[in-house]
Amino acid sequence: MDKWKRSARLVDMTRQLLVQPYRLIPLTTFAERYHAAKSSISEDLDIIDEVLKAEGNGELETVAGAAGGVRYIPDIGRDQALHVIQGLCERLSNPERILPGGFLYLSDLLGDTTLVNEMGRIFASVFGGKKIDAVLTVETKGIPIAYATAAYLRAPVVIARYDYRVTEGSVVTVNTVSGSGKRMRQLSLSKRSLSERSRVLIVDDFMKAGGTVRGMFDLLNEFNAEVVGVGVMLEAPARERLVDAYASLVQVRELDVKERRVQVDLGNIFNRERWA
Amino acid sequence: MDKWKRSARLVDMTRQLLVQPYRLIPLTTFAERYHAAKSSISEDLDIIDEVLKAEGNGELETVAGAAGGVRYIPDIGRDQALHVIQGLCERLSNPERILPGGFLYLSDLLGDTTLVNEMGRIFASVFGGKKIDAVLTVETKGIPIAYATAAYLRAPVVIARYDYRVTEGSVVTVNTVSGSGKRMRQLSLSKRSLSERSRVLIVDDFMKAGGTVRGMFDLLNEFNAEVVGVGVMLEAPARERLVDAYASLVQVRELDVKERRVQVDLGNIFNRERWA
Repeated sequence: MDKWKRSARLVDMTRQLLVQPYRLIPLTTFAERYHAAKSSISEDLDIIDEVLKAEGNGELETVAGAAGGVRYIPDIGRDQALHVIQGLCERLSNPERILPGGFLYLSDLLGDTTLVNEMGRIFASVFGGKKIDAVLTVETKGIPIAYATAAYLRAPVVIARYDYRVTEGSVVTVNTVSGSGKRMRQLSLSKRSLSERSRVLIVDDFMKAGGTVRGMFDLLNEFNAEVVGVGVMLEAPARERLVDAYASLVQVRELDVKERRVQVDLGNIFNRERWA
Repeated sequence: MDKWKRSARLVDMTRQLLVQPYRLIPLTTFAERYHAAKSSISEDLDIIDEVLKAEGNGELETVAGAAGGVRYIPDIGRDQALHVIQGLCERLSNPERILPGGFLYLSDLLGDTTLVNEMGRIFASVFGGKKIDAVLTVETKGIPIAYATAAYLRAPVVIARYDYRVTEGSVVTVNTVSGSGKRMRQLSLSKRSLSERSRVLIVDDFMKAGGTVRGMFDLLNEFNAEVVGVGVMLEAPARERLVDAYASLVQVRELDVKERRVQVDLGNIFNRERWA
């Protein structure tokens, strides 16, 4: 465009900021792009910030100084989060999801890009205050939520695998034990996928006793990495937990295969200070 | 907000449209939300449409009538796409990616949410003109790109798996043959993950002879589904292809393990009419 009016600037700046969460954009970049004074750009940013805040969709953070600029910090308000998760609870309560062996069919939910995107936004909002270098998950079902979360945090996704693959190069491998202690599996993470002493957010689709999440802790320990949080979509009742602190979006209260009944509730993420 | 000025409306409408590609939003929804006349909303939409088009970021499509409204059709201009893929070529040409056996390390690229998001936008732009009911990929590495593509198309992601899992319910299974014809693997897809006669876009990270993609064709055949396109991130040289038509972002010309040299070029997606 040759001439950028305020209205056109607002549309374009909103787009640029929203599609690049956490990326610091210098004010001069905007000023040059729109042939506008920095003071005008600042006024535009104030408008965008006000609208985002009013609707619970996050805010703009301005960093002063020569290396400064503005960036979009995504968020989700309690009402919006509640709306998403209540919808999820409803869909999960459908008895047709019950599979032989007492499993729940989740693939349609994990393939629903709109839902997955919102779940990612919730995790990114809850954990976004902390410095996060990477989001770790395990193949296969956790990948979409981990990816959505990482996109909102502008962090890379790192995927641990149950089977060693030649395409991963050298790997670090640990043993994981299922909650019942009956089954052992090896979990591997490519050596070059994570730097030493990274700060890592763990995200997965499902947790019962937490053997898989425990395995991820053990893997991260080998990288001298620090776990800054654990987010799971669905937690199931367990006699004992191998993981202390985690945030769940949804919890299964009861799953009766014979009576074909599933009872699902809001997860503990709604007990957090920000949303309680 | 109590009072919505045009500037605030533009920011909020841009956000709503961008985060929900392909979703038809009735003009009355906007008119009620902002307490504004439909004529004002139409003027706002014209501004947004103009800015999106000018920068090659897609456009707004207005559907007339009682069930009408407006929706965002994402796109990416040739220059932007070229910029993304040239950057990808550069990163792929690093000889440190060469793994024993002549494989290339790709996990960091597939974990880079910004890059993956742009690759998804490219596939969505190229195939978005067609009606697409689902995006199909195979575990594990294709999932992020498939997810990003599907998010831009507002379509669900469906994941075929090499090993049958109890959490998938009943599945359909086919045999796949590697390009060399030496190795057979079973590929399964949950029966309830796809409706009969769906129109499906196949997306994967890597293709050599195309045995895996061929397996996805065979799977889809069992669902009486129709393949509307095939998109792969990386294609490698092969003596024979099991797949006729596909769009690749990048092609490996040469990989010399001994000399530690990788030569990578733009994929055939840039030969398409829209970008040639």
